[in-house]
Amino acid sequence: MPADLHPFDAAIRLLPDGDDAFAGATSPGYANMVGPYGGIVAAQLLNAAWTHRARAGEALALTVNYAGPIADGPFRITARPVRTNRSTQHWWIELTQSGEPAATASAVFGARRETWSSTEIAPPEVPPATSLARSRVAGRPAWFGRYDFRVVRGDLPDFAQPREAEDSESCTWVRDDPPRPLDFPALAALCDVFYPRIYRRRGKWVPAATVTLTTYFHADGGALARQGDRFVLGVARSLRFGAGYADQTAEIWGDDGTLLATSFQLVYFKE
Amino acid sequence: MPADLHPFDAAIRLLPDGDDAFAGATSPGYANMVGPYGGIVAAQLLNAAWTHRARAGEALALTVNYAGPIADGPFRITARPVRTNRSTQHWWIELTQSGEPAATASAVFGARRETWSSTEIAPPEVPPATSLARSRVAGRPAWFGRYDFRVVRGDLPDFAQPREAEDSESCTWVRDDPPRPLDFPALAALCDVFYPRIYRRRGKWVPAATVTLTTYFHADGGALARQGDRFVLGVARSLRFGAGYADQTAEIWGDDGTLLATSFQLVYFKE
Repeated sequence: MPADLHPFDAAIRLLPDGDDAFAGATSPGYANMVGPYGGIVAAQLLNAAWTHRARAGEALALTVNYAGPIADGPFRITARPVRTNRSTQHWWIELTQSGEPAATASAVFGARRETWSSTEIAPPEVPPATSLARSRVAGRPAWFGRYDFRVVRGDLPDFAQPREAEDSESCTWVRDDPPRPLDFPALAALCDVFYPRIYRRRGKWVPAATVTLTTYFHADGGALARQGDRFVLGVARSLRFGAGYADQTAEIWGDDGTLLATSFQLVYFKE
Repeated sequence: MPADLHPFDAAIRLLPDGDDAFAGATSPGYANMVGPYGGIVAAQLLNAAWTHRARAGEALALTVNYAGPIADGPFRITARPVRTNRSTQHWWIELTQSGEPAATASAVFGARRETWSSTEIAPPEVPPATSLARSRVAGRPAWFGRYDFRVVRGDLPDFAQPREAEDSESCTWVRDDPPRPLDFPALAALCDVFYPRIYRRRGKWVPAATVTLTTYFHADGGALARQGDRFVLGVARSLRFGAGYADQTAEIWGDDGTLLATSFQLVYFKE
């Protein structure tokens, strides 16, 4: 592997391993408390289709299902183009370890065309990223160090001093560390940078894990290129907690106010 | 088929057709302008896993990908339990016609447990369904007649008198017609009752179709039973239109203010 490869590119690197199949491995730099950071898994799954010779068009949508634990070490991803029609291409993607599925995904690629456009929401008014201090990395899972967080509101609670929040919303500038030009796999990973909202509401750590994550990519390749390696603004909240599950909805904004992606996840929690 | 079967139950009816496979067919009563109503396809796909002997737990999440046109007539659905872990069960579901995939889905089932709970949004204040007139059915695709719509705000525009709306949000009471007790397949179908938001913004008909649809079920079986066959309140809006695609986000509320489901879709449009 080239020594100067960005940690993100090293983490999502896949080698051909048969028809529609690729070999990859977990990266210690993107480790979470247990297993890998969910965002890097999303990026790895997307990357299998993204780099597949049959891929047609840009990423439009990605749904990742976290079906079982992923152990540190090698994995295999199969990516199969299920159906290509005039405007969209549908994929089924599966990550297995020792033959057992640990994560699955469906992805939609497609051609974008010039059309009428409108954005009905606006990004929150926030101070620039560079005016804010970087979030603490020490004592947090490794993947936190792969991102430069400049939190506007709702930083990860101090678990030593539990304090409940009245709402689940948080807002943060974030970019890869070291900085890296934005592309679809990186944006897919960024959609999962928000710690579980239950931490914020309960003001403490509780067992929690993403069950399923869906992202809609609103930006095209040109908009991603224009954003480059600068900070993006992420806003996330939950609408409903109950019966062991919470949803989470998030927007990722470019620093020029472009809506790059919206993302949704269902999170398991025990509290 | 029993003569007194509800049209919805007749439409989602599946017969065993081999291991993990079922035979079904489109229903004229749920026809859309071209092909079947997307909500009934979602319900059919979910029903394959829901009625599968290996199913464990209640429906938590469903993602449906509309991969190609579905012709009037028979289809085959395969539903495969990909992985069952301690709390959740992950499914991959595929609808084929003449061996070609036309729709795919992933579904997550799981056990719900008593936990801390909170709902951060509230339903809009609206008049009761029974105080509102039923939406017109005549001249609209057949599936409109399978639902009793009592629109609070943002009815389907009159295509004969184009008029743009400033925002995409609409709000409607809706229930099956004839009334039918709510269950997971019916709720999955209800999440797609909102006409494409581009119709509302542009005030006219434009070619549009759902590409992918994700639903999170917040209600458990008990909450669905309590809701019974009464009207639910649906609220839907788009955040972003552009480059031939729009998102749509929706909430489905029980008439007692319970958040039953949240749903997201990406819609193709040509305008």
